[in-house]
Amino acid sequence: MKGYFITLEGPDGCGKTTVANNLDKKLTELGYEVVHTREPGGIDIAEQIRNVILDPKNTAMDPKTEALLYAASRRQHLVERVFPALEQGKIVICERYLDSSLAYQGFGRKLGLDEVLNVNMFATENTYPDLTIYLDIDEEVGLARLADREFKDRLDQESIDFHHLVKQGYKEVLKRFKDRIKIVDASKDRETVANEALDLIIGLINDSK
Amino acid sequence: MKGYFITLEGPDGCGKTTVANNLDKKLTELGYEVVHTREPGGIDIAEQIRNVILDPKNTAMDPKTEALLYAASRRQHLVERVFPALEQGKIVICERYLDSSLAYQGFGRKLGLDEVLNVNMFATENTYPDLTIYLDIDEEVGLARLADREFKDRLDQESIDFHHLVKQGYKEVLKRFKDRIKIVDASKDRETVANEALDLIIGLINDSK
Repeated sequence: MKGYFITLEGPDGCGKTTVANNLDKKLTELGYEVVHTREPGGIDIAEQIRNVILDPKNTAMDPKTEALLYAASRRQHLVERVFPALEQGKIVICERYLDSSLAYQGFGRKLGLDEVLNVNMFATENTYPDLTIYLDIDEEVGLARLADREFKDRLDQESIDFHHLVKQGYKEVLKRFKDRIKIVDASKDRETVANEALDLIIGLINDSK
Repeated sequence: MKGYFITLEGPDGCGKTTVANNLDKKLTELGYEVVHTREPGGIDIAEQIRNVILDPKNTAMDPKTEALLYAASRRQHLVERVFPALEQGKIVICERYLDSSLAYQGFGRKLGLDEVLNVNMFATENTYPDLTIYLDIDEEVGLARLADREFKDRLDQESIDFHHLVKQGYKEVLKRFKDRIKIVDASKDRETVANEALDLIIGLINDSK
């Protein structure tokens, strides 16, 4: 693959979308071709799968069903959107990817990191991001930021205990993949956060030359 | 689990539904409690997943997406329908289960038996059937039986080459699981086929006492 696959991770409300928008703008100004996406990313089949996952009526959904559906949606988004962009040499900035499944399903749902990783290795053909930027924030601060969102999907309705488990999960994921994942303090002002993330991406590009 | 988990397998048109109906009737007459099902089995979440898989519009679906969606639907059907019935000591007769994924996705879609099995072990928590009855028929005879069905879903539209691969796949699956899977010649008349299948189930029950 000729491009760069960058993912943004972190607890709900950590500011992924704001950072991604900033990165998209700054990298484009620097002359790079950028694809800013997130699963399901407008891919029709992945959207259909996402609708099943997030429908507030689907309260009977088993955690393993949920993990398999995320992996299916991820697969389709990867094949239809990420792989083609990488082959064209673009920088793909994706909000959330497999580390989210490790934290949310592996720990939040208690399925286990290795079990969920295993399914995701099937789904992604062992495609890890070139770089993952973890936007570090206290999970309660993140949730407070989101409190005034109007629509709550099935996952938005989870308890604070669930979000504590997810945060613990991210800590394990950071340990496991410490070379790939870089941490940025997301409690700083948005310009500082975006610039630190940008420096990491520019560093990756320079190192790979 | 106190019940018996029986699955019926075979190429399209091998007569699974007819055999299952017959078995349901005969076992009920013998005093057993029977649950006759097939994925998605009326389970709402599994139906939603199935709709995504089979929608004729979803021609862009990647084979791994398809395998993950089948595993997700299987998981939900197992949790909501099969496990509860087995815990109540019932005989569950399920048309198609993981061997179908091994044959259709593992071979028909060329994903590989072990890869697809691995995902299904996650989905099912290593739940193999107690007995699988393979209804053996020439795949072209099976397809001819189905030719006058009116509605064609996405998989009904596959080429004959696909069905040849599926048949080869089943042969590999039969080799791999020769203790669990018993073969019945499905080209015989339906009463003979049903009685041979019934004898296998009664044999299983007697052996387990």
